[in-house]
Amino acid sequence: MTTRTVQPGDGVGEASTGGPLRIGLVSGPMVAIPPPAYAGTERIVAVLVDELARRGHHVTLIGPADSKVDCELVPTIDQALWSSGISGDATPYIEVTIERAWSVANRFDVIHSHLDTLSFSFARHSPVPVLHTLHGRLDMPGVPELLDEFRDIPLVAISESQRRWWPKNNWVAMVHHGLPLENAPFSEHAGKYLAFVGRITAEKGVQAAIELARSVKLPLHMAAKVHEEDEKRLFAEVVAPAIAKGIVVFEGELATPERDKLLAGALATVLLGAWPEPFGLVAIESMATGTPVIARRAGALPEIVDHGLTGFLVDDLHEARFAVRGIATLDRAAVRRTVLERFSVARMVDEYEAVYRRMAASTATLRR
Amino acid sequence: MTTRTVQPGDGVGEASTGGPLRIGLVSGPMVAIPPPAYAGTERIVAVLVDELARRGHHVTLIGPADSKVDCELVPTIDQALWSSGISGDATPYIEVTIERAWSVANRFDVIHSHLDTLSFSFARHSPVPVLHTLHGRLDMPGVPELLDEFRDIPLVAISESQRRWWPKNNWVAMVHHGLPLENAPFSEHAGKYLAFVGRITAEKGVQAAIELARSVKLPLHMAAKVHEEDEKRLFAEVVAPAIAKGIVVFEGELATPERDKLLAGALATVLLGAWPEPFGLVAIESMATGTPVIARRAGALPEIVDHGLTGFLVDDLHEARFAVRGIATLDRAAVRRTVLERFSVARMVDEYEAVYRRMAASTATLRR
Repeated sequence: MTTRTVQPGDGVGEASTGGPLRIGLVSGPMVAIPPPAYAGTERIVAVLVDELARRGHHVTLIGPADSKVDCELVPTIDQALWSSGISGDATPYIEVTIERAWSVANRFDVIHSHLDTLSFSFARHSPVPVLHTLHGRLDMPGVPELLDEFRDIPLVAISESQRRWWPKNNWVAMVHHGLPLENAPFSEHAGKYLAFVGRITAEKGVQAAIELARSVKLPLHMAAKVHEEDEKRLFAEVVAPAIAKGIVVFEGELATPERDKLLAGALATVLLGAWPEPFGLVAIESMATGTPVIARRAGALPEIVDHGLTGFLVDDLHEARFAVRGIATLDRAAVRRTVLERFSVARMVDEYEAVYRRMAASTATLRR
Repeated sequence: MTTRTVQPGDGVGEASTGGPLRIGLVSGPMVAIPPPAYAGTERIVAVLVDELARRGHHVTLIGPADSKVDCELVPTIDQALWSSGISGDATPYIEVTIERAWSVANRFDVIHSHLDTLSFSFARHSPVPVLHTLHGRLDMPGVPELLDEFRDIPLVAISESQRRWWPKNNWVAMVHHGLPLENAPFSEHAGKYLAFVGRITAEKGVQAAIELARSVKLPLHMAAKVHEEDEKRLFAEVVAPAIAKGIVVFEGELATPERDKLLAGALATVLLGAWPEPFGLVAIESMATGTPVIARRAGALPEIVDHGLTGFLVDDLHEARFAVRGIATLDRAAVRRTVLERFSVARMVDEYEAVYRRMAASTATLRR
């Protein structure tokens, strides 16, 4: 992406000169902002809304009407799907969201979409620049063809791992997530159990976590929702027997404060899934409480976990056992300090702000 | 490790001034040098013997008497164990090897042991400096205690992955392996099958390789020995049914030329084992023939495979399928060129030579 330097007073407005920007953030129909229960993407949107508004930008959220934000809200649907209990294909609701964004596009200097691939056409044809942060894995059916078709539109990856398949696309930045982690509780003492927070799916490494807990003779405290059919099946097959044997303490789906308490009280949080996790918020949430992470070297985790400092990266169960053995030697205050620096809201929003300014400036220049 | 500059003519001999060194290479009892069939460690020893002698050093191999080398040989046992068919615990033979090395130690400027941990005591108490290259994984029972005890002795790791658990040991270098890869056959055309070369063990990803081949509808050509009980069991359970279904073409244990031909003719070589492979010679051997590698992000493979250039790094079966889809777009000449540069004998021996000189010089200085 080439940008031209814009001189003060050349009539292109504040966007390119460091003043407030008019920013439209587009969020999907699934979850309101901020999310009432555990969510990934929507928490990042909530943080962006808050911090960009705090910095004096004119922020508009284009999202579910039951969102509660301190900025202008352009409602897309009356109630977010997770809370209204609607399941099945969300595509029509996303199309509604995109149309709503399109209808107000001209009011912004830059639009930032979190709808993943469905709004790629919008990005190409919108009158104002549209940035996409991609939140998912990029090798699923059809996504490769889409990324090939849309090599021009500006994209942000959330990890190097996520974008490594797509060197020819227009990645304007890689921005690791940031969260207000300084609010997390901190425990300076290593606990006596392993923690698992996530979904009860094979890809999240449920079985490996249980197997590890069994072999190191530590209880595994699990916080997870069990809603979908495949979650229920894996729960019955793998988790329930481990509860019966006293290996797993199952705490269900926890609200954020209880979940943070679970993380803070653990010896280590385990992320042993063999899948390309695009980021891994649980990892940074755990480390913020002082609890280091034992993670498989997959997805973004090698970028997030500093081996020997904030946790250990492992390749198999044997290494995971070995990691458990050494994990209490890590300095929990250093774990927290490191992650608060690396994954702060300030750092993330700085990086997005820089992208917004470049995009707004380049359009302003073109519009002259 | 601190070394002092030694002035010419100060009486410490050639060791510290760039002249030939007297080097003792210690190799285990399992395999003769050079190895008659597939081997890992012993091939590296063979390369070191040849290239160090070619560079004018006074090289002595301390190893099995049936070795055939162009240098002095101090025989340890009459016949290497693999060819004499002796199985079971090799420890007594390794102890004999160490004693033989000790008995001639004074003849060398530096001794380089490939016996892994059993010769650590030798390194500490020997009258001349002893370097260890560690070839295995370092988290097995007892190894941690040993490494803690022997923090002083100079070690070389064969990958960053291998040494990442042991930041406090005396790593004088990390030296990736090098092989005479320029002799490998080259095929500029992508083949129509996947290749697997290795052991028939779960950790090498046998099942994942077969599952991948099945799902992308490509035959999997496998070259592997099936000697041990666990190899036979996995073969019967997993490989034999896949042969019956026409997924696997099993070629048995191949000599190097046939194995190279197998690699050269493939679309890709797959290394999907979820274990901390300390290096992964098969990866560089495949790439030398122009055939890129599809490897799980485990062990040293992320250091060896340049994602998008010499192969693809994957986290799960879905990504592996995706990698198969794109692998034919890689430039096979570039694959070969890259690996010949990065994993050359010259580069490896340069790095070891530098370590030898530092060690010899520091001792020579101490002896004054």
